[in-house]
Amino acid sequence: MSSAKKTAAIIGGGVIGGAWAARFLLNGWDVRLFDPDPEAERKMSEVLGNARHALPMLYEIALPEEGTLTHVATISEAVAGAVYIQESVPERLDLKHKVFAKIEASAAMKTPVGSSTSGFKPSELSEGAKHPGRIFVAHPFNPVYLLPLIEVVPGPGADEAAVGAAEAILKSVGLYPLRVRAEIDAHIADRFLEAVWREALWLVKDGVATTEEIDNAIRYGFGLRWAQMGLFETYRIAGGEAGMAHFIAQFGPALKWPWTKLMDVPELTDDLIKQIADQSDTQSGALTIRELERLRDNNLVAMMRALKQQGAAAGKLIAEHEETLARPAAEGALVRTIDRTVPVDWTDYNGHMNESRYGQVFSDAADAMMRLVGADPAYIESGKSYFTVDSRIRYLNETLAGQRILVDSQVLEGKGKKYRVFHRMKNEAGEELATGEQLMIHVDLTTRRSSVPDDAVLQKVEALAAAHAVLPQPDERELL
Amino acid sequence: MSSAKKTAAIIGGGVIGGAWAARFLLNGWDVRLFDPDPEAERKMSEVLGNARHALPMLYEIALPEEGTLTHVATISEAVAGAVYIQESVPERLDLKHKVFAKIEASAAMKTPVGSSTSGFKPSELSEGAKHPGRIFVAHPFNPVYLLPLIEVVPGPGADEAAVGAAEAILKSVGLYPLRVRAEIDAHIADRFLEAVWREALWLVKDGVATTEEIDNAIRYGFGLRWAQMGLFETYRIAGGEAGMAHFIAQFGPALKWPWTKLMDVPELTDDLIKQIADQSDTQSGALTIRELERLRDNNLVAMMRALKQQGAAAGKLIAEHEETLARPAAEGALVRTIDRTVPVDWTDYNGHMNESRYGQVFSDAADAMMRLVGADPAYIESGKSYFTVDSRIRYLNETLAGQRILVDSQVLEGKGKKYRVFHRMKNEAGEELATGEQLMIHVDLTTRRSSVPDDAVLQKVEALAAAHAVLPQPDERELL
Repeated sequence: MSSAKKTAAIIGGGVIGGAWAARFLLNGWDVRLFDPDPEAERKMSEVLGNARHALPMLYEIALPEEGTLTHVATISEAVAGAVYIQESVPERLDLKHKVFAKIEASAAMKTPVGSSTSGFKPSELSEGAKHPGRIFVAHPFNPVYLLPLIEVVPGPGADEAAVGAAEAILKSVGLYPLRVRAEIDAHIADRFLEAVWREALWLVKDGVATTEEIDNAIRYGFGLRWAQMGLFETYRIAGGEAGMAHFIAQFGPALKWPWTKLMDVPELTDDLIKQIADQSDTQSGALTIRELERLRDNNLVAMMRALKQQGAAAGKLIAEHEETLARPAAEGALVRTIDRTVPVDWTDYNGHMNESRYGQVFSDAADAMMRLVGADPAYIESGKSYFTVDSRIRYLNETLAGQRILVDSQVLEGKGKKYRVFHRMKNEAGEELATGEQLMIHVDLTTRRSSVPDDAVLQKVEALAAAHAVLPQPDERELL
Repeated sequence: MSSAKKTAAIIGGGVIGGAWAARFLLNGWDVRLFDPDPEAERKMSEVLGNARHALPMLYEIALPEEGTLTHVATISEAVAGAVYIQESVPERLDLKHKVFAKIEASAAMKTPVGSSTSGFKPSELSEGAKHPGRIFVAHPFNPVYLLPLIEVVPGPGADEAAVGAAEAILKSVGLYPLRVRAEIDAHIADRFLEAVWREALWLVKDGVATTEEIDNAIRYGFGLRWAQMGLFETYRIAGGEAGMAHFIAQFGPALKWPWTKLMDVPELTDDLIKQIADQSDTQSGALTIRELERLRDNNLVAMMRALKQQGAAAGKLIAEHEETLARPAAEGALVRTIDRTVPVDWTDYNGHMNESRYGQVFSDAADAMMRLVGADPAYIESGKSYFTVDSRIRYLNETLAGQRILVDSQVLEGKGKKYRVFHRMKNEAGEELATGEQLMIHVDLTTRRSSVPDDAVLQKVEALAAAHAVLPQPDERELL
């Protein structure tokens, strides 16, 4: 199927470019990567390893089949046939101009060209370009394979068709293109980061706090607020029923107070740099960068999954992206109800899937069996559903974080109010991990009492039961 | 038991003071609250309602019995007998001085007095006090009943015994006192917030982004990073193997670039205030402040629980606090294995506990039955454990987010490698919610094969099995 895949060209394969490549690959795109660094292949494989571990865990169903990564020797090989081009070379304007010139020499005229620049404006990037309108800022946030934000900044003469096409592509790989309304140095988020960075340098220099204390001041307090609501909505709440105008009026005077030192920038002397580096070693030096990355990614996955479960913030974006992914396809006569990865928040400290998550997988499989007969969210919204009243799980083998798990499901009984289903959970090697069985009873959600399903649902249940009755049945000892 | 409880005096019962009161109450302290606002009781009960919903959900076991809240008419009544005093009156220095004078007239000389001030320095707060050394900044973050950070800033002549006692008290109610090394306007975190706030005002005023776009730029990107690692550890990773000094050298030049506008503060004209208030209405106006608070709290609970499961950041603090809480006490002859609240991340969008979480409760109950016979984390660390091989759950009744659930457990069989347990889950009204049964087999974790437990464990299993054999047994139809 590889020939049907779209191709992205990634120019520059460091931490940022490599993660761009990984995001596309794991969403089923082919990627052509250009990076003259002799270490590029090793670096890319490390980033891809991290991404393969983390990104699939955000979803309750499998991502598309991974695309093909090709390391190429020239920019022209990279961009030929690509429908999206992302530049992530070092932050020097002359270098970026050279790269854009080479891209334009080989790429189709309308192909969007995004730049990962932290600070340059699109009008600066596109100076001297033949088709300046399709060059725009697409500024990502590390790790690009997990964080959804992309600041999209078109220049003054932007080709709206190219930028719009780019935004659709970014969305299709689970990113959130945030259109910035006017170009400005450092776009939006990096201006906030720069402000905080300047203030933090002063606090360290003046001995008010160490790097670790500053990190704790952020992550035990407002960092948690910002991860889910940001700045203004948080302050709206702080303003109470009197609202945002009241909040601004109340906190307005502080703008005149000496609460920041920001434009008076501390000089980066060797002493200050050493002080910060030493404090950072004390704080985090026990772990390698790779270990820190893994911790960060596991934390991000767990928090983003928590937000997803709440239907909030970045988690809502993931759920919306998941809706665009293909559900598991039927395999043979049984129903393939689950095809997914074991996420880190389902495992113990050794990475083994917790006992209770076997139950969650079978509960999700039962949900899939409900959807299949039309007992879907709309049906539940209408006031009817199936409730599990009895269940059995047999635990046969272990599985680990990051492993793929598959469930095939069979109807054992389907008539009247009863819907009894049986599941076999397997790993990719086909080894049986567990079996599960649920007796579900149809319920009227208004009275919370058992009731007969709607005709359309009942007919599907009965048809599925009849089709599955002629298949091999589970052994009696496997059943309730 | 109320007489044995410690008393905290809370002076000022708004959003901040009320949440301080709630944090103490829910950790088993009695609270005397002084606030002259005629609406104080209503406001306090609203904050307490939010806190009762959210805080217990952070823990896998029940918090201590809630303390008694007393609204008092004078500061002297509030502080009499209190071992901790927290001031949260409006941000006016003259008012705070008056409050401290009244506190000092009635409170024991050594009782610590924390101030929730956002900006004043302790040397300013304690001007004119009789015992200035016990007055210090204890700056919390909204919502105080969930976020652990307290910036503790002692003044130059601080009474270290009083401040140290205060820090121990703050820790005991699950807070994280962060000692600030030198007093400075706005302490640490508010300096960052002020810097970002100033920058954000410019972005709105200049039409670069709306309030909602700014919030999205934070919560879909670096906000998620900061919630778990903060600023410096995040940048340490960005610096890669070359480390922090490399990162600073690389990003140093940006300090000279026009990436913030911070000291040139936009004037808060009526037009600008209206612009922000209007944008905020568009962004969040469909929900009331109470609804936003509930969303925020649910998101925070879910994210903090995710971090707790990872043993990271704020979640690690919660786990450490949980270790100091009393485990459920035995009730009658059975073992009370679970006494906890249903958290929001265990429920569907209507607040009902998901099917799979019944399994999690019983899995946790099985863990408790393992700890009881000495198969505890140290035993598992030594290479042995029990694995569940078969289980049954019967679902009898529903329960909701925020409800308390209790589990009593019974050993059905305990000999050799076998440990078979049965659980009844009930709500506070004693209504049976579900029954669970697990057949556990002892396993050598090196070979992952079944094995005989250590003698000490086996003897306890057998003794418990013998003691439970004479108790009423579950009906055959309830069992596997």
